Amino acid sequence: MGSAAGDGDRQYAMHHGSAAADQRVNLAARRPFVEALRSGLAETFFPDDPFRGFGALPPAKRAWGALKYFVPALEWAPQYGLGKFKYDLLAGITIASLAIPQGISYARLANLPPIIGLYSSFVPPLLYAVFGSSNNLAVGTVAAASLMLASIVEDEVNPDDNPELYLRLFYTSAFFTGIFQTALGVFRLGLIVDFLSRSTITGFMGGTAMIIIMQQLKGMLGMKHFTPKTDVISVVGSIFRYRHEWKWQSAILGICFVLFLLSSKHLRKKMPNLFWVSAIAPFMVVIIGGVFAFLVKGDEHGIPIVGDLKKGLNPLSISQLTFEAKHVEIAVKAGLMSGILALAEGIAVGRSLAMIKNEQIDGNKEMIAFGMMNIIGSFTSCYLTTGPFSKSAVNFHAGCKTPMSNVVMSVCIMLVLLFLAPLFKYTPLVALSSIIVVAMIGLIKVKEFIHLYKIDKFDFCICMVAFLGVVFFTMVIGLSASVGLSVLRTLLYVARPATCKLGSIAGTEIFRDVKQYPYAKSFLNILVLQLGSPIYFINAGYLRERILRWVEDEENICKVHGQDLQHLILDLGGVTSIDNTGIGMLVEIHKSLDRKGIRIVLANPRLQVTEKLVLSGYIKDTVGEESVFLTVKDAIASCRYALQTSRSKEGESEV
Amino acid sequence: MGSAAGDGDRQYAMHHGSAAADQRVNLAARRPFVEALRSGLAETFFPDDPFRGFGALPPAKRAWGALKYFVPALEWAPQYGLGKFKYDLLAGITIASLAIPQGISYARLANLPPIIGLYSSFVPPLLYAVFGSSNNLAVGTVAAASLMLASIVEDEVNPDDNPELYLRLFYTSAFFTGIFQTALGVFRLGLIVDFLSRSTITGFMGGTAMIIIMQQLKGMLGMKHFTPKTDVISVVGSIFRYRHEWKWQSAILGICFVLFLLSSKHLRKKMPNLFWVSAIAPFMVVIIGGVFAFLVKGDEHGIPIVGDLKKGLNPLSISQLTFEAKHVEIAVKAGLMSGILALAEGIAVGRSLAMIKNEQIDGNKEMIAFGMMNIIGSFTSCYLTTGPFSKSAVNFHAGCKTPMSNVVMSVCIMLVLLFLAPLFKYTPLVALSSIIVVAMIGLIKVKEFIHLYKIDKFDFCICMVAFLGVVFFTMVIGLSASVGLSVLRTLLYVARPATCKLGSIAGTEIFRDVKQYPYAKSFLNILVLQLGSPIYFINAGYLRERILRWVEDEENICKVHGQDLQHLILDLGGVTSIDNTGIGMLVEIHKSLDRKGIRIVLANPRLQVTEKLVLSGYIKDTVGEESVFLTVKDAIASCRYALQTSRSKEGESEV
Repeated sequence: MGSAAGDGDRQYAMHHGSAAADQRVNLAARRPFVEALRSGLAETFFPDDPFRGFGALPPAKRAWGALKYFVPALEWAPQYGLGKFKYDLLAGITIASLAIPQGISYARLANLPPIIGLYSSFVPPLLYAVFGSSNNLAVGTVAAASLMLASIVEDEVNPDDNPELYLRLFYTSAFFTGIFQTALGVFRLGLIVDFLSRSTITGFMGGTAMIIIMQQLKGMLGMKHFTPKTDVISVVGSIFRYRHEWKWQSAILGICFVLFLLSSKHLRKKMPNLFWVSAIAPFMVVIIGGVFAFLVKGDEHGIPIVGDLKKGLNPLSISQLTFEAKHVEIAVKAGLMSGILALAEGIAVGRSLAMIKNEQIDGNKEMIAFGMMNIIGSFTSCYLTTGPFSKSAVNFHAGCKTPMSNVVMSVCIMLVLLFLAPLFKYTPLVALSSIIVVAMIGLIKVKEFIHLYKIDKFDFCICMVAFLGVVFFTMVIGLSASVGLSVLRTLLYVARPATCKLGSIAGTEIFRDVKQYPYAKSFLNILVLQLGSPIYFINAGYLRERILRWVEDEENICKVHGQDLQHLILDLGGVTSIDNTGIGMLVEIHKSLDRKGIRIVLANPRLQVTEKLVLSGYIKDTVGEESVFLTVKDAIASCRYALQTSRSKEGESEV
Repeated sequence: MGSAAGDGDRQYAMHHGSAAADQRVNLAARRPFVEALRSGLAETFFPDDPFRGFGALPPAKRAWGALKYFVPALEWAPQYGLGKFKYDLLAGITIASLAIPQGISYARLANLPPIIGLYSSFVPPLLYAVFGSSNNLAVGTVAAASLMLASIVEDEVNPDDNPELYLRLFYTSAFFTGIFQTALGVFRLGLIVDFLSRSTITGFMGGTAMIIIMQQLKGMLGMKHFTPKTDVISVVGSIFRYRHEWKWQSAILGICFVLFLLSSKHLRKKMPNLFWVSAIAPFMVVIIGGVFAFLVKGDEHGIPIVGDLKKGLNPLSISQLTFEAKHVEIAVKAGLMSGILALAEGIAVGRSLAMIKNEQIDGNKEMIAFGMMNIIGSFTSCYLTTGPFSKSAVNFHAGCKTPMSNVVMSVCIMLVLLFLAPLFKYTPLVALSSIIVVAMIGLIKVKEFIHLYKIDKFDFCICMVAFLGVVFFTMVIGLSASVGLSVLRTLLYVARPATCKLGSIAGTEIFRDVKQYPYAKSFLNILVLQLGSPIYFINAGYLRERILRWVEDEENICKVHGQDLQHLILDLGGVTSIDNTGIGMLVEIHKSLDRKGIRIVLANPRLQVTEKLVLSGYIKDTVGEESVFLTVKDAIASCRYALQTSRSKEGESEV
């Protein structure tokens, strides 16, 4: 039984030449330019290789496969049945009960008429059900992007002075968001989202949650005047400047709601089966608050209410998009910034939920789905939507099976729009504020901050820059500074690749970093360096200095033993890429060392590097093919052999 | 004799524990935060570690050493003697003969009064002799930076309308260049220069040489009107627009001069000992041209001349620096852009000449020297200077030994300024144009372009963007676009790190990329992946997709053999850095695979990576310490053992 694996290995074995040839670096392995380019482009833009396995199919099936690829609904709809619908129905109703208060709240956060929030929960979910690839995502508006849109658009238009233009800019920016997201998906540029690191998102979300909570003090205290700025200092200043507007009735109601919502959340943590209690709690708050405000005539007694909500489905808004030169710039800016943010949230949420169920979701497909949602949304009185974390998590826990739960939610919202909208007129603003506050508290992840601080100080800085930037300046500044710092870190990484000296671990042929394994032995007359990757123009100057310093240090050590350094072995096993400046650097090092009588030996260059070293003539003309070895062990053996030969010659001539 | 190396090895051996412990990954190797930070900062900013070996010295010697570090003249001056002076004297006179025509020509290229070019060859070389660390560099003005300065300053001030302000902006920008260069040197930010890759410089220099040659058509044809723009289309248009100004006398003289200069260059290539012929040829052209113009009264017969040159040394210009808000911005821009360019040229030239003599030069020290040259220069009527390639190469070939040759040149220029300046009045402009044209022809390195095209298409693109950008747009656009593309390439490299599947090379314990070594055997039930470096936020999403795809592909292969994939070995030997998002990605992969019953095993994590994996709890809580191995071989052995055990258990239960 035990030899099965061994037999398997032999089955796997492909053709192989003589053992001696096998143990040399394969200098002939060179991909033709077109193949190298094709594989490079494929890895860059199609890392998931969506059409693999298509080649063998007949054209009709292939076309059907491609259509299914672009319209995932065709994948699940044919197998859809009552069994799954039961689950989706329950999940859809649950998220609809969350969508109503959240839609109204976030629309108010963006200084939009509350009804826009409901409109935005009707059309986009239907589109996602057709184009989306995640079974768990629930579509809706999000707090962070709503506030960011408001803060950008308010720079140009005051929502109180010109509410109509303000709203039109929201539609227009949603249109640009859609175009941008679709384009990213079609051109497979999903990697832009990768520029938002986990640390950036943690910090940004925490900071945004913080300022959103601060903003809610307006609603909690029933104030009318407030600063349009989002930073903490302006907000706190504004709260105290208008302290005569504070309304204690509103505040008391607010505290009650917050406590109720927090305890429902706590319940869910203790008893995960009762998740639906916390899921419908916001809806309960809206209902109870509305009834209460209606009974006590809240708006006359210090409890401001939402006000009139029109009955009826989304009106068309395509004619309201504005492309005038003087406004279009701000709409594009708002669209791109909030679009990236919305994508990052939607894709991250989709991925993490898919992972729990062990499903796959395709980032590029998701982008196209989000893009369609926002383009069509902008034509039908919706503003920016994506897959918010809170709603999707509820959807997931409610047991959704397919995007059908979004359709159910959409139908519920439709019914509300058609028949029940006016009933929400009495919703107290403080109820909405409480819902937002409680939703946001969970986003300030103090534990994650501490975790980052412990593991990686640089990541902690990136996170804090985002957090503090958002809290004390603006959301755009916080986000950009944090991304800038992340990119700088990446460039610094490339600028200073790790190099280390290798020694052999006692009694073995294993060669490892002498710093990491202090008991690894170095070699007399031979220095083995492992180079980090890549060898690029940014680090060529550094690497030259660093390698020459390693050599100098080693020469000093050798001198103590009355010996000379004679061989430098460069272990290229970890180097995956080299450019023209890098090759030039290797040539320069060769010249420098040649003059000192030190020979350069290369060990284990990888495919892309070997290709270029061969093409540039470095291997043939500079170091010589006989100085390239498959392993460090072979390289050392060769150096030792050379040392012995030269010594015995010296010995002979001395005799 | 043969065992000497072996004995040496044993002497090198440090303490070592039991063999078993030695062959495990050293999970305890963790640097305290302060040490890790210190070593990180030291590698980033002090890669050459200038003060090493100082620790053991007494304070007085240490101070003297530090002073010598900042003033390299103290290093060579005490040992200076007549023996070296002979060489430096000859070299100094030779470069002075080149400095006069070049100084005047490049000043004209920048639309400055010709005398400024001579001033700039007097003061800065003296300063370089004190602060410079290269023995070969000859200081002077450079063509590319002169033209770039002119093209930036002309955007703001027309040199014909307001020559005084134009000149003052040149002084001011030289001042800012100096401050900037000194700051870079002091804060050891030399790595900024590393952003100019060899490909960028090749393309930029070629493009600049091309447009400078085009510019010289003005002088060659004796024209008066010309476009201030530098791009080829404007220049050619301008030449034909003013074709009535063409002067055949000037053109004939120009062609003669160019042919003379080219043949002197050709002579040098054939007989390297006659280098001085080509070195003084430009001076000869100036003399012959001047005498000729004087005799035939050239300025009245279609051969424009330089015109009056005042006798006397550099006047002070410190009071002419202008810091008015409306001009300072352009001066800063011009100073920074041309400063980076001048640094790149100066340092590259210094390095390549030092390499031939096997000397060391220190980039940061050089920056401080250049900075001092430009600050003091801006106070004494000089504009931007650096170490130009042509002059330094002549200096080198003339046998200079120390920076004293710069002093000799400076003294020669001083004598010219004091006594001979008026004699250069009759220098025909066409002589200067010929000198520039011939100097520039050598900078268009067609062979290098072809070489780049063969080795690396991306590098070729970077080069061509610089070349075409300079030729068809502006120098700033060409340079920025090319640097932008280089940085994008670096980010793309990080975004898509290479991953490959490893197989064992027949009959050995060597594990290599199966694509590079097609005869390497894969393993049944076990997939070995080698990951590229670093694992960062930019590539975490990609790596997750890619690894899961490798796993899926391998599962399909296993299925064909009726087997399951049971182990995934990640060879981390090439990964030198990981961030928080990267660790999160590894956790996610673990979750995904865990559900499929595939176990993750790590092989050979390096120091920085091990530190973080341990700190984040990944090793302990996620994969388990027993799944981390020093080598791929050990990892495979462990996986095989696990396979055997589970199979024999299955076998037992079947029985």
